[in-house]
Amino acid sequence: MKFDLGSELIYTATKDTTLILNIEAQHLRGQRISSETFTISPHARGEAHDVPETANRYRRLLLTPGRYTIRYEATVETDPVTKRPDAVAEMAVDKLPFEVVSHLFPSRYCQSDELGRFAWRRFGDLPPGHGRVEDICDWIHDNVDYLEGSSHGSTSAYDTFTTRAGVCRDFAHLGITFCRALGIPARFVSAYGWKLEPQDFHAVFEAYLGGRWYMFDPTRLSPPDGIVRIGVGRDAADTAFATWFGALESEPKIVWMNEAAGQEEAAAEQAVSVSAT
Amino acid sequence: MKFDLGSELIYTATKDTTLILNIEAQHLRGQRISSETFTISPHARGEAHDVPETANRYRRLLLTPGRYTIRYEATVETDPVTKRPDAVAEMAVDKLPFEVVSHLFPSRYCQSDELGRFAWRRFGDLPPGHGRVEDICDWIHDNVDYLEGSSHGSTSAYDTFTTRAGVCRDFAHLGITFCRALGIPARFVSAYGWKLEPQDFHAVFEAYLGGRWYMFDPTRLSPPDGIVRIGVGRDAADTAFATWFGALESEPKIVWMNEAAGQEEAAAEQAVSVSAT
Amino acid sequence: MKFDLGSELIYTATKDTTLILNIEAQHLRGQRISSETFTISPHARGEAHDVPETANRYRRLLLTPGRYTIRYEATVETDPVTKRPDAVAEMAVDKLPFEVVSHLFPSRYCQSDELGRFAWRRFGDLPPGHGRVEDICDWIHDNVDYLEGSSHGSTSAYDTFTTRAGVCRDFAHLGITFCRALGIPARFVSAYGWKLEPQDFHAVFEAYLGGRWYMFDPTRLSPPDGIVRIGVGRDAADTAFATWFGALESEPKIVWMNEAAGQEEAAAEQAVSVSAT
Amino acid sequence: MKFDLGSELIYTATKDTTLILNIEAQHLRGQRISSETFTISPHARGEAHDVPETANRYRRLLLTPGRYTIRYEATVETDPVTKRPDAVAEMAVDKLPFEVVSHLFPSRYCQSDELGRFAWRRFGDLPPGHGRVEDICDWIHDNVDYLEGSSHGSTSAYDTFTTRAGVCRDFAHLGITFCRALGIPARFVSAYGWKLEPQDFHAVFEAYLGGRWYMFDPTRLSPPDGIVRIGVGRDAADTAFATWFGALESEPKIVWMNEAAGQEEAAAEQAVSVSAT
Repeated sequence: MKFDLGSELIYTATKDTTLILNIEAQHLRGQRISSETFTISPHARGEAHDVPETANRYRRLLLTPGRYTIRYEATVETDPVTKRPDAVAEMAVDKLPFEVVSHLFPSRYCQSDELGRFAWRRFGDLPPGHGRVEDICDWIHDNVDYLEGSSHGSTSAYDTFTTRAGVCRDFAHLGITFCRALGIPARFVSAYGWKLEPQDFHAVFEAYLGGRWYMFDPTRLSPPDGIVRIGVGRDAADTAFATWFGALESEPKIVWMNEAAGQEEAAAEQAVSVSAT
Repeated sequence: MKFDLGSELIYTATKDTTLILNIEAQHLRGQRISSETFTISPHARGEAHDVPETANRYRRLLLTPGRYTIRYEATVETDPVTKRPDAVAEMAVDKLPFEVVSHLFPSRYCQSDELGRFAWRRFGDLPPGHGRVEDICDWIHDNVDYLEGSSHGSTSAYDTFTTRAGVCRDFAHLGITFCRALGIPARFVSAYGWKLEPQDFHAVFEAYLGGRWYMFDPTRLSPPDGIVRIGVGRDAADTAFATWFGALESEPKIVWMNEAAGQEEAAAEQAVSVSAT
Repeated sequence: MKFDLGSELIYTATKDTTLILNIEAQHLRGQRISSETFTISPHARGEAHDVPETANRYRRLLLTPGRYTIRYEATVETDPVTKRPDAVAEMAVDKLPFEVVSHLFPSRYCQSDELGRFAWRRFGDLPPGHGRVEDICDWIHDNVDYLEGSSHGSTSAYDTFTTRAGVCRDFAHLGITFCRALGIPARFVSAYGWKLEPQDFHAVFEAYLGGRWYMFDPTRLSPPDGIVRIGVGRDAADTAFATWFGALESEPKIVWMNEAAGQEEAAAEQAVSVSAT
Repeated sequence: MKFDLGSELIYTATKDTTLILNIEAQHLRGQRISSETFTISPHARGEAHDVPETANRYRRLLLTPGRYTIRYEATVETDPVTKRPDAVAEMAVDKLPFEVVSHLFPSRYCQSDELGRFAWRRFGDLPPGHGRVEDICDWIHDNVDYLEGSSHGSTSAYDTFTTRAGVCRDFAHLGITFCRALGIPARFVSAYGWKLEPQDFHAVFEAYLGGRWYMFDPTRLSPPDGIVRIGVGRDAADTAFATWFGALESEPKIVWMNEAAGQEEAAAEQAVSVSAT
């Protein structure tokens, strides 16, 4: 599918502040960017930094005091996601590429060291593989209420498991936590998500199965081919859409994602014009 | 200085278990290994994996059920640490190499997002640089009691700040947390530490200043040139000396570190014979 | 001083719900109620329950489904609070009336068992007595930011001590926690507070000194004789203005407290007309 | 049944310390004390305080520096507990005696405000009454591992629910928490428990049903008539067997409980000789 998407952030710096943004769509084989624009007004000194290992794209901007409007717009085409790959197997920990082993360790919001007893009791006897991670997502969907305002910036999987309420980010953290506890590497994915209500940044997670990363969305709020990836990391601490060092006041952000018109033609043209200021 | 050091770990696997060890000294310019041996008895299938970026050295072993004795022994020479480099400056976040930026983010045991208010109030007005991180260490040393048994595996900087008691690992987590809150990248270092009582693995931390990593030990338990580095990572979650997936029972570990005899001659010989089974 | 004060709460019960309210001013020697009205519309079956030991006044109402407007209005006169009674001494734990000993124990929001190390280190060497509790209030005022929205329903003293931000309820919890850790019985007081901005229910605390309870307000937001007590308890868990069992949706509450006209005359009349529906 | 039971505690006070003990069996209709002795050696000034409302018996002792051996011994007869009273109903919150309402509120170790969502989802549709509290106990027994050393002094129901491991005190806290979340008043009971391995103080809980308190033991470690009650309170914070203010070092405590010989005769004699120094 093809989408017009983007976000607009407004910040007022009250002193010199370094702002690190991660709001741009990743360049991936299954996620093609046919056009995009990043603007900040007034102009601020900064740089773009793309991390090859993760495909994460950062902007690091040095804001002097003032009010800034930041806007990212892109047209992105995603490949249709084929149906549930149940045959994909888990990999034994001794077979994992060493680079993904760190995705088995607990992180800021994913205390897999604390939730292992439950994870093994509940999911340990299920047939391993892609289906087991789907079972984890089903459990989250069935046992945790999706409730705006029920969590906050310091809410972790430890809390969500107890209070049984959260938003997409909390759902993803819980899925990651269960996977890691079971010996399945897992990581956080921030994204643009189609059909979210209200529209906002989305969060899903990936599990490492059969030699690659597979995406899972325990909220079931966006269709699989309606998710455009922004950033991956251990958890939300690594993939904040905005991190700053200094003093910043923010106004409500706007995020949008709509089906783009003229889907076939665009695919035919394939005219990629990436313009980032 | 030159040290004979090592550790002995005894585990009983009750089912097939993958054990990941990080107990071997790093190969570094200021930390030369003149001899070392790693043995596991009975033999277990496995591999060594050295991570170039961090110099961390892992063993991943596949244990079938049984009782295993693992022993690492090395002779390591450290360079004398020159006196406190007060002139070293902090780097502005917008100048940091992008690779170290992730060491500003909160992690499992270092909730720098929660402790920023205190960190800025207490340390924000101090002159930035190496001396400020020393001030952080002084504060930890003066305000937190070093107390065996006062913390446990899930204790984080959040807890240590409140309860004001901990061991070396907790001291390091708190130091890391304050640094990150102030915009100074910081990471955890596991180590062999000379003169620890009781002898055990040690933990210190590093802050990124003036373009490189500097080591700090808020416990002040080992002399600076009496610390032999094992692993670095975001916090103890990344640098556990042993992580396993399966079922393992452990017996009390033994860790030792003593000044080696014949220091001058050894330096002259420089005969490095690394033998790892 | 004399005040017109009150509150208006609007709830919609979506099934049969028992609502327990604690919003009425206490009848005390230094806090005289010259008139008051409690109304709920539409009518709901219920009862008033005054607890002699604490002077707390509860309404327990059985709401059938529907939307209810609850309104409490009173005119209350407080005695001027005499100046800081520095001479008042702490009581040794072995001299305390046994009834107040339970106010030394930790409670839901006041983990005095965790904060003892800090409390003794910081306040342990100060001269005991009323002045030491004032010192505790000064410390809270100087080290914790009063910040609307910085805490939520499950925030405890443990959290506030770490994050260093909160509202009146958090300030009170922290004061209680330090007192208990030092062996000074302390309890939570919910109140109407004059000059609060925005107007809302207020929270302060009391410490047991020299044989009676003394009130302290670490927020310093209301003048001492501008506080009209509603409820006392171990912490906010005991003194919620509203607790319900069932299903209730609430609309924003309104709380007010203004200086009453005709202060002298009212005192002369002393015509107490309590009318509670 | 009839039991010889008791405990021996050894403390060294390093400065003047007030010690509050709650280790003596309650005098109850179904729990008759045929003889008991409380001794402290060397002698310490102090007093016994019995709380009529709860039947809790406290000793408050003022220890000057020195090493003290405290010993309580009693012969106690319990009534056989009749079989599971399934017919006992829950009471609607609006019918509860007001005195027990506070046992619906969250407390230090029982965050019923956080666990309500789970409690209602899991137990909300079960038939209310004594059987529902038994179902709660079954759930705890089936889902939480009884594991010495898995918890510590600050472990709360919030933690136990997540980590799924604990000891008797944690099991009781979790039971209390679920009950309160469902609108069933619940409280903590410390006790001597027969057949515990290793022998130690025991902890169970009580729920208020059909107008009185019923005891529940989710650990299922002691037979119902093998539990001799010591103290009741909101949670373990209220019913610590020892609380002190000052400085005390403790040696391992000894607790014992054995079936007493000559059961019939003792009942006939009924010669109660309570001697407490």
